[in-house]
Amino acid sequence: MERPRHQGMAKNTYMRWRLPLVCLLWEVAMIVLFGVFVRFGPEADAHWEEEKKELNLTSDMENDFYFRYPSFQDVHVMIFVGFGFLMTFLKRYGFGAVGFNFLLAAFGIQWALLMQGWFHSFKNGKILVGVENLINADFCVGSVCIAFGAILGKTSPIQLLVMTLFQVTLFSVNEYILLNLLHVKDAGGSMTIHTFGAYFGLTVTRILYRPNLEQSKDKQGSVYHSDLFAMIGTLYLWMYWPSFNSAISEHGDAQHRSAINTYCSLAACVLTTMAFSSMLQKKGKLDMVHIQNATLAGGVAVGTSAEMMLTPYGSLIVGSISGIVSTVGYVYFTPFLESRLHIQDTCGIHNLHAMPGLIGGIVGAITAAAATEDVYGKEGFIKAFDFTGEYQTRTPSVQGGFQAAGIVVSLLMAFVGGTIVGGILKLPIWGDAAAENCFEDEVYWEV
Amino acid sequence: MERPRHQGMAKNTYMRWRLPLVCLLWEVAMIVLFGVFVRFGPEADAHWEEEKKELNLTSDMENDFYFRYPSFQDVHVMIFVGFGFLMTFLKRYGFGAVGFNFLLAAFGIQWALLMQGWFHSFKNGKILVGVENLINADFCVGSVCIAFGAILGKTSPIQLLVMTLFQVTLFSVNEYILLNLLHVKDAGGSMTIHTFGAYFGLTVTRILYRPNLEQSKDKQGSVYHSDLFAMIGTLYLWMYWPSFNSAISEHGDAQHRSAINTYCSLAACVLTTMAFSSMLQKKGKLDMVHIQNATLAGGVAVGTSAEMMLTPYGSLIVGSISGIVSTVGYVYFTPFLESRLHIQDTCGIHNLHAMPGLIGGIVGAITAAAATEDVYGKEGFIKAFDFTGEYQTRTPSVQGGFQAAGIVVSLLMAFVGGTIVGGILKLPIWGDAAAENCFEDEVYWEV
Amino acid sequence: MERPRHQGMAKNTYMRWRLPLVCLLWEVAMIVLFGVFVRFGPEADAHWEEEKKELNLTSDMENDFYFRYPSFQDVHVMIFVGFGFLMTFLKRYGFGAVGFNFLLAAFGIQWALLMQGWFHSFKNGKILVGVENLINADFCVGSVCIAFGAILGKTSPIQLLVMTLFQVTLFSVNEYILLNLLHVKDAGGSMTIHTFGAYFGLTVTRILYRPNLEQSKDKQGSVYHSDLFAMIGTLYLWMYWPSFNSAISEHGDAQHRSAINTYCSLAACVLTTMAFSSMLQKKGKLDMVHIQNATLAGGVAVGTSAEMMLTPYGSLIVGSISGIVSTVGYVYFTPFLESRLHIQDTCGIHNLHAMPGLIGGIVGAITAAAATEDVYGKEGFIKAFDFTGEYQTRTPSVQGGFQAAGIVVSLLMAFVGGTIVGGILKLPIWGDAAAENCFEDEVYWEV
Repeated sequence: MERPRHQGMAKNTYMRWRLPLVCLLWEVAMIVLFGVFVRFGPEADAHWEEEKKELNLTSDMENDFYFRYPSFQDVHVMIFVGFGFLMTFLKRYGFGAVGFNFLLAAFGIQWALLMQGWFHSFKNGKILVGVENLINADFCVGSVCIAFGAILGKTSPIQLLVMTLFQVTLFSVNEYILLNLLHVKDAGGSMTIHTFGAYFGLTVTRILYRPNLEQSKDKQGSVYHSDLFAMIGTLYLWMYWPSFNSAISEHGDAQHRSAINTYCSLAACVLTTMAFSSMLQKKGKLDMVHIQNATLAGGVAVGTSAEMMLTPYGSLIVGSISGIVSTVGYVYFTPFLESRLHIQDTCGIHNLHAMPGLIGGIVGAITAAAATEDVYGKEGFIKAFDFTGEYQTRTPSVQGGFQAAGIVVSLLMAFVGGTIVGGILKLPIWGDAAAENCFEDEVYWEV
Repeated sequence: MERPRHQGMAKNTYMRWRLPLVCLLWEVAMIVLFGVFVRFGPEADAHWEEEKKELNLTSDMENDFYFRYPSFQDVHVMIFVGFGFLMTFLKRYGFGAVGFNFLLAAFGIQWALLMQGWFHSFKNGKILVGVENLINADFCVGSVCIAFGAILGKTSPIQLLVMTLFQVTLFSVNEYILLNLLHVKDAGGSMTIHTFGAYFGLTVTRILYRPNLEQSKDKQGSVYHSDLFAMIGTLYLWMYWPSFNSAISEHGDAQHRSAINTYCSLAACVLTTMAFSSMLQKKGKLDMVHIQNATLAGGVAVGTSAEMMLTPYGSLIVGSISGIVSTVGYVYFTPFLESRLHIQDTCGIHNLHAMPGLIGGIVGAITAAAATEDVYGKEGFIKAFDFTGEYQTRTPSVQGGFQAAGIVVSLLMAFVGGTIVGGILKLPIWGDAAAENCFEDEVYWEV
Repeated sequence: MERPRHQGMAKNTYMRWRLPLVCLLWEVAMIVLFGVFVRFGPEADAHWEEEKKELNLTSDMENDFYFRYPSFQDVHVMIFVGFGFLMTFLKRYGFGAVGFNFLLAAFGIQWALLMQGWFHSFKNGKILVGVENLINADFCVGSVCIAFGAILGKTSPIQLLVMTLFQVTLFSVNEYILLNLLHVKDAGGSMTIHTFGAYFGLTVTRILYRPNLEQSKDKQGSVYHSDLFAMIGTLYLWMYWPSFNSAISEHGDAQHRSAINTYCSLAACVLTTMAFSSMLQKKGKLDMVHIQNATLAGGVAVGTSAEMMLTPYGSLIVGSISGIVSTVGYVYFTPFLESRLHIQDTCGIHNLHAMPGLIGGIVGAITAAAATEDVYGKEGFIKAFDFTGEYQTRTPSVQGGFQAAGIVVSLLMAFVGGTIVGGILKLPIWGDAAAENCFEDEVYWEV
């Protein structure tokens, strides 16, 4: 089929020296920085035998590895298969979806181990890593995978690596502000991962606005089998989300509770998504876009509160609402964002991550503010919100206020950071494709 | 291609108000019932800190979460990806297979948490849930996924939701009779999940018999890639079946033993399936239908006995036999059932679940009847069959008799329940498609 | 398209009696041998209740099941979905890739439980099995899956079963020599699994050299969707490799450390693979073959050393190098091996397993030789290398020497074994296809 040739065709997408250079230089930088800073934490170090005696531990089972490794693997699957395959819905961009997600996440987890390590695991000049660091690195990269969803098909792998570098950095700063300065709870990352990641990505795609994108409109759709591949991503995200929200919660009841709340929220979300998907379409048929995405909003929306005493019915309510909001978003907001605000959001992350992330932050703030010693038990109350040390006197309502502040900080960080990073990505040196070659694997892959 | 138009074309498959109404009303009902009844169990409640002290537990590891959560996640994958993708083998029904399975399971687990909760976790007016409840809810829904296999491609999503509502209810009653009244062991559900689920589904499809189904014969087959998608489902079911059969067994040796027995049975099953698949075909070629399904019969057939001292070679024998029975079933029984008994069994659940389920119940009864204190050890014997309290004096042979009774009860419940529910589903108000539109995603999905 | 008919067309690929006979006879043999030899190990036996008291264990958590079962399941997925789908990249050999891998692995794990059991778990005339045996059986079969990669598309299922029988046997002998006689560490199997498996497979494919294979050149490529199916295999191998390398390490810090080292190595490997994939192609585009395979070399290359104090930056270095070596291998070595050495390596296992396996063996020898009590701690040092009993006085440098010897033994075993087994497979009785029918499912499958 002949397609009209535009000025865009002149764009240079030749990667041969640029991509290898970035990959290799950055990997060398990782090696040097890891060499200087990263060491095994006490539970992964061969000195653990002695450590055990000092800590008077009678069983190897007390090693954090056994508390968190199964959840880590589930989270790992969500990042690489979950996000990777969710984005294969485009008919001719499956390699880019899975492959670039693989690339950016593999780089991102290394950089996140460093950035988060400096903030949270730094001791005597060294970053001491254990399984919890691996989970947190995956979490951090999750926010980049989300942002990738907004610019899917429109950026070069180099742009993605550059974005990852900056976004991981900003994520870590924002996370530090929330967790350490505001002393906010956000184990499943409604604010740090979803709100921040989504609004960051939306800001970037706004800056990278492509007025002629309708030239590749025919490639923005799916085909039958690409929709089934995307369902692999959807289901793995959906099934493992209870692990995601509970992976770094406190040992014991908190992990247990997070998993139950998330399970309930996600189940409810499927029903309201199906309901609205059918209702908002004239012929009453279901739309795979909604099933692939909005069914997951329930996981996002309990990301902050899952480890709290949200209760199973509370989770059903939150999940139900977020499924509705997300589906409505796909039908009405996405076209609006594109036509009026020039925000071209390929995967609809505004509906799957941004709005549900905000809901999650708000629900978290309310749940925290509503906490009582009666509901949590005296000790459980202190443990749940870590009201110790300098936070000994913080009340639930104050905690709720700080939680709300966490949302605002995450939004600000996303808008400011996204604007700057978007500006950097706009430089004409990164090898992005012309509008008529977007959503097309042939540009960067041998097909 | 022009296809002849039949009276069936007049059928109203318009879902726009019916599906949303059912989904939303039922979800509201769930929220209300959860609000009234469902609370966190002690191990997921923030009071666990105090509970631990009372129970004198020294480690958070004693929380049931750590004994069962990895198995739960495997079971979760089996229900949503395993069953969902197993049914994508049809060339034009992949969305329906994965999507409707998703819908019915998401509703079913909520309703199962309530139904099973009232029977088994009810305390002081509340249902107290923990990770074991999540597993059991998934199990219960597993029986609905099985029944779905029989009617795949011939029912509307509303019919599936209605069937789920009733089947979960009947499942819970049957489970209560077996586990509590008959005091039967069935950790992997040969009887409660497979026998009940399959004969229920077969009865329903018999009631819903469609005389003109050959009109959509061309769509009942697979294409190359749909068979590969189905293999994703097959393999996840096959790999995680050891987790399925061990998920709710007693802590320690019983979980360990269940996994080993199931691993062995499934391995043997693959070899006999391949052998008979080749043998029963004139050209000696292998048939993907058998590989996708009959290889799993070994998991079904040790569902009752896996946690008993079946022994690895016993498992190999059971697995070998069930692979043969199942493959022979696909070649000879399925056509017979359709032509003579008017049982149209889309996925051949009679071969994968019904017959192996019966084998599983019988093997369980024999293994129980053959138990001795010598083989189990004095304490192990009591623990394995829970011969405590009012069952203190029950002998292995009596236990074997009760196990056998469990099969009969499950069958009766399936036939009676299936007949009634089939009758309800036959009402012309649920929006099922005409015969010539069966096995076709376009009816309910935007394609 | 008309293709020329060659003498090869006369080849008899009719499986109807041969395949069933082999499958059934061998399964009967397994049942007999299991009946004579295999019993539950103490932790899976119902006597465990008493055992616990004798061992003074206070918690069921001390059962090895809970230390290893999650890793076992991950390894299980790698063997069946990982290897199975990785090989579906061929456009018309998806059934053979997934299905034959399923068949050979299901047989292989049974035979491996026996062979490895006789060598390592034999007590009072019985093989006592537990979860670690299941993992080791999967590992052993992993080496067969690797060898399968070299001959993919060119052999009959009977040949694969025959190869499995012999290779599992040789694997077990080699493993015994390495672990018991040389007292070598190789938890992730760089030597026993990858080096042995790959060179064994390469030797077999050399013996089975087909001069006319270019006749099926058109079928040796991939199509768009088959590449996406292959990425499922790639990602599951990549994500779960930390579980693979840590699955049978000592409880506690060793398992923890193995997972971290592997995670790091694999992350680095992705970046160097992408870099070289782009660099070695004139247009600078990425090649899916490299992404699907070379990204995994990092897991292979830390298979021996992951449980040692390799350190995270050491892992990054090893991963980086192996990604480069592997990608360069695909571009330059594979064509060379085929044209000059007549080694037709369908999946390029020389690049993914052979060379990285050698690297892994060497890195392991160096890491062991460099070990000090300072780095490991006094007790950790002894525990890490099991310097107890007769090995009490072995020094790190001696250990390094034995590790190096392990590589040589594995290579010798592979070459000699591969030559003999290749010779057996060359007999004209196993039903392999003619050159022009290679890489074609229709030969053995109903399509």
